[in-house]
Formats: sequence, C-alpha cells, structure tokens
Amino acid sequence: MRKVIVSVRLPRDLHEELGTMARIVGPEDDVEDAEALLCLNVDPELLRRARGLRFIQVVTAGVDHLPWHHIPPEVVVASNAGSNAAPVAEFAVALLLAAAKKIVHFDRNMKGGVVRPDVEVPVLSGNEVAVLGLGEIGMRVASTLSAMGMRVVGFSRRPREGVPLHRFTTDLGDALSGQRYAVVALSLNKYTRGLLTYDVLSSMAEEGVLVNVARAEIVDREGIRRLLLERPRFVYATDVWWSRDDYSRDGDVIGLPNVIATPWVAGGYGNRGVYMSMLRSAVENLARYLRGEQPRNVVPREDYV
Amino acid sequence: MRKVIVSVRLPRDLHEELGTMARIVGPEDDVEDAEALLCLNVDPELLRRARGLRFIQVVTAGVDHLPWHHIPPEVVVASNAGSNAAPVAEFAVALLLAAAKKIVHFDRNMKGGVVRPDVEVPVLSGNEVAVLGLGEIGMRVASTLSAMGMRVVGFSRRPREGVPLHRFTTDLGDALSGQRYAVVALSLNKYTRGLLTYDVLSSMAEEGVLVNVARAEIVDREGIRRLLLERPRFVYATDVWWSRDDYSRDGDVIGLPNVIATPWVAGGYGNRGVYMSMLRSAVENLARYLRGEQPRNVVPREDYV
Repeated sequence: MRKVIVSVRLPRDLHEELGTMARIVGPEDDVEDAEALLCLNVDPELLRRARGLRFIQVVTAGVDHLPWHHIPPEVVVASNAGSNAAPVAEFAVALLLAAAKKIVHFDRNMKGGVVRPDVEVPVLSGNEVAVLGLGEIGMRVASTLSAMGMRVVGFSRRPREGVPLHRFTTDLGDALSGQRYAVVALSLNKYTRGLLTYDVLSSMAEEGVLVNVARAEIVDREGIRRLLLERPRFVYATDVWWSRDDYSRDGDVIGLPNVIATPWVAGGYGNRGVYMSMLRSAVENLARYLRGEQPRNVVPREDYV
Repeated sequence: MRKVIVSVRLPRDLHEELGTMARIVGPEDDVEDAEALLCLNVDPELLRRARGLRFIQVVTAGVDHLPWHHIPPEVVVASNAGSNAAPVAEFAVALLLAAAKKIVHFDRNMKGGVVRPDVEVPVLSGNEVAVLGLGEIGMRVASTLSAMGMRVVGFSRRPREGVPLHRFTTDLGDALSGQRYAVVALSLNKYTRGLLTYDVLSSMAEEGVLVNVARAEIVDREGIRRLLLERPRFVYATDVWWSRDDYSRDGDVIGLPNVIATPWVAGGYGNRGVYMSMLRSAVENLARYLRGEQPRNVVPREDYV
C-alpha cells in the first residue's frame, strides 16, 4: 500500500477517509518509501529521510514559509489556495470599511470622551479601490466592493481576461498612484516580497488606506513605518505581521495611532471551523494525487526559488 | 411671485436656482403669505405666523423631530429619504463587519499588548442577517450583504414584493429570533419608537450583533443596556444616540466594552459633500412642488400623530 506522511492532526473522519487510500505514517516513522506528505510546514531533516517523496500538500493557502531550497525540483508542491478565501475576503472588506469609515478612530475617541467629529467620513460608492492580487481572495473582495458601487482597479502580475473589474492593470504604479484605497491579496513569493516600498506606497493619496490580509513581508517594514509617521491620516489596517509569532517585535508599528491591528485571525487561525474545512480541502486534493488525477493548486517552483 | 421660507443656509447655486421659482425669505421675515418652507426643523412659533403654509420640505431623511402636533393637517410634509442612503448604508455595513469580525475588539487588545486571539472570528457567508426596514438604506445594506453571500431576512411593516431577499417577513419576532446579526434601518415614527425592547432583543443569539444607523429611540435604552450587561459577547454598534447632542448623557452605554460607538457621522453630519447633496435633493423636491408636480417622499401624517 502507498505510504503518506501526515504531520498535522486530522479529525477522525478525514483520517479514515485518507486511510482507505494510503497507509498513514507520522514524520518520526520510517518515511523512506513515503510518496506524499500532508503538512503545515516541512522540516529539511524530514526531506532528507523521505527519499521517495513525490508530492507535498500544504494545508495553508500560502507556501512562502516552506524550505524551498531543500525541496527537490522533482517534488510537486500543492498549496491550499482558495480554501479560506471566503472568510479572509470578508475580513479584508471589514478592515477596509473600519478604516475608511473611521469606525476604529471614532470608537477610540468616543470611549475617551472625545465626541465631536474631527475628521470627515468619506463616501465609498463611485470611488476607486485597488485590489492587488486576483486570486480567489482578491476576486471576492473585488466583487463585494463592486456591489457597494466602488470601481475596482485590479492588479496582477499576469494579464487576466474576463474578470469583472472596472479596470485591470499589470503595472503596480498605475494601480496605486493617487489611490485612496488598496487591499493586498497577493501571494508572498520572490516577486512580491518587499514589493510595496515607501516609494510605491507614497504615491497613494495623503489619506490613503492600505489593507493587508496576505503576508506582512509584501510590505516593506521600514517603508510603511516611515509613511505612517509622515502621514498621520494614512491608515495601515493589517491582520498579518513580519514577526509572525512574536508580536512584541512589531510593537513599534502596532502602537502607531494610524494602524489598525488584528492578530492573524482572518482565516484558519481565527476560526476552528475554517481550519477544519482547510484540512478537508487539503485531504481532497491529496486524494486527487493518490487517485492519479491532476491535483489543484500546483505551485510554480520558479516563483519561490 | 410665490414666497418660500428657507431656514437653512443654501450654497449660492442652489439659492439662485430656487430664486428663479420663488421669492426666498428667512424665518424672521414676513412669512404670512409664504407657501412653502425648506428647513432642518421648524419652530411652532414660525408655524403660527406662516398661515399660508402648504408645503414643508425637510432636509433630513428622518422627520421624527418635527413638532407634528403643531403642523396643521392640510400642510404636506416631504422628507428627504434616500438622499444620504449610499453613505449611511456603507456605514451600516462597516459597523456590522467591524463588530462581527471583531476588528474593534482585537485592535483594542493589540494596542494594549494582548495579542493572543481570545474569541473566534465567525464566517459570514452562508449565514443569516436581519435587515429591519427596507427603505433605500435597508435595501442597499441587503444588497451588499447578499453579494458577500449572506442570506438576508428583510423585515418591514408592510408586505413587499419583488425585493431580492432570502426571506421577507412582517413579523419582528420572526426576523430576530435566534438571529446573530441585525441592522436597524427603520424610520423612527410612532410605530417604531421603542420597538426593540429587551424581550425582542434577547431572542437574538447570545453573541448577537445589533447595528443601528437609524435612530436611537427605536431601541429601548434600558432594554439594550440590560442585555449588554447580561451578555458580554453581545455587541451594539451604533452611530445614533438617545441624547442626540449631549453624548455625556449616554456615557453609561458608550463606556460599555461591548458597544462600538460613533458620533452620528454616517450621513450628512459626517461629510460636507453628503450634506450638500442632501440640500440639492431637498431643493429639487421643493422645485417639484413649486412646478405643480407631485413631490416625492410625502410623509404619511398618521405615522407621527
């Protein structure tokens, strides 16, 4: 029977389902003849032992955290893109509206006894918003904001056809220049790491709102920090952090008054049901591979190496 | 020439436009033969002097603040309903998402150094939301939330047909019972004042979210306060206040941790451009009356007296 390494904890039903197709072993077991791996991340040491590995199915939507230089080129890697798209897109819209409509600002004021409106609340319908990245999250964000009457400018690296946007561009400067609202929904890969520099971001409107539900590293840390210090009315609303699991190292950004901060809860880390459905989606894709079908979300290695 | 009393400050272009149709006087002038009034509110003393008055055009969308018992039954009153619907509907969605997705909660925590997620972030798509009141604001809220994949339960007093809702009801209990999310977009009138009592609201889900962009008085003050004290995870996100212009009198509600508070900024008070377009819309409707056409938004007197 074919052997699959599972390094995440599966609920009983998914474990049984996968068990009908392959023998399930843990990363500490004999993995030399294991053919596939289901994981959140993979240790290079495990890769050295699993010499027969041909397929890695990741549970997360992003695959930027994998040790790409240790993964042999012949191993196919599949992401779990789209598996948490609905909740993450909802969260992106929530951050955008909370920032744009000054909900967090006014609530902080009201709690502190400051009740006179000190800033205008902009109207969104009829205005542009840039959506960076047109995967399933970006497209859902675009669709909700279009329904609100916003004109969505979609940006992605490769030309796209047939997407229901007000305008599409492959030019980041064109997408962001003069823009008041922007949502980052890009994958983090070698092309997008540090893509949003100070220069690019400072072309946005003085009172811009930048939302990030993707990965912190797409935004240049010192660039956004400088912009936020220079422009007290520019807002960075983000669920993702450079420090990943030690937020105290991002305290100098979290503490800025023009930052809206949430602790990486838009998707699977914020809701157990979302995480469970991500596991299900990952197991279903692994099953495609085991049945000899073409798995979905195969990651182009050249985006990372 | 026909005479119109204008008690609001009009920008020059609207003043000139109206001036081509009627002689404009102020409330302190001779108003005995004035036929129409353009106002935010009207003093009963002015009504006593303006014996020829036949038409009142209000600049606000709501008309609950008018001195209805002093307005003679033969005077037609037109509201400015719909004139600020787009921004107010956007604000309602912003409050709902900021509350449901725990944006305000997590941001407060993160700023205070509490970085571990302590509550789950719910998924909205596929779930129900009650929209109370299906005027232009309610319908816009319903349409945006539907686009996000929510199933909208619409409530209004009179049966409606052809509205694109998941479900429609004229039964408030049916709309709210067990419901996790509800948006108040009703007019305040004699039927809706105090409509949302403790009993009605406590039929909602334990972790319910109630959004109010309409009028505070639709919600029973002591009822919601009791509910918020009993259910620490129930959230009341509101832009409108019982005290109207002295928020310190609502401090005992504003200060609750499960209240998201904004200072009546969803519409014309939050944005000068919105107020200007409300003025334009009011002048246009007054012009309809002056040209002998049927004005829009004529208010049924029996809703208030």
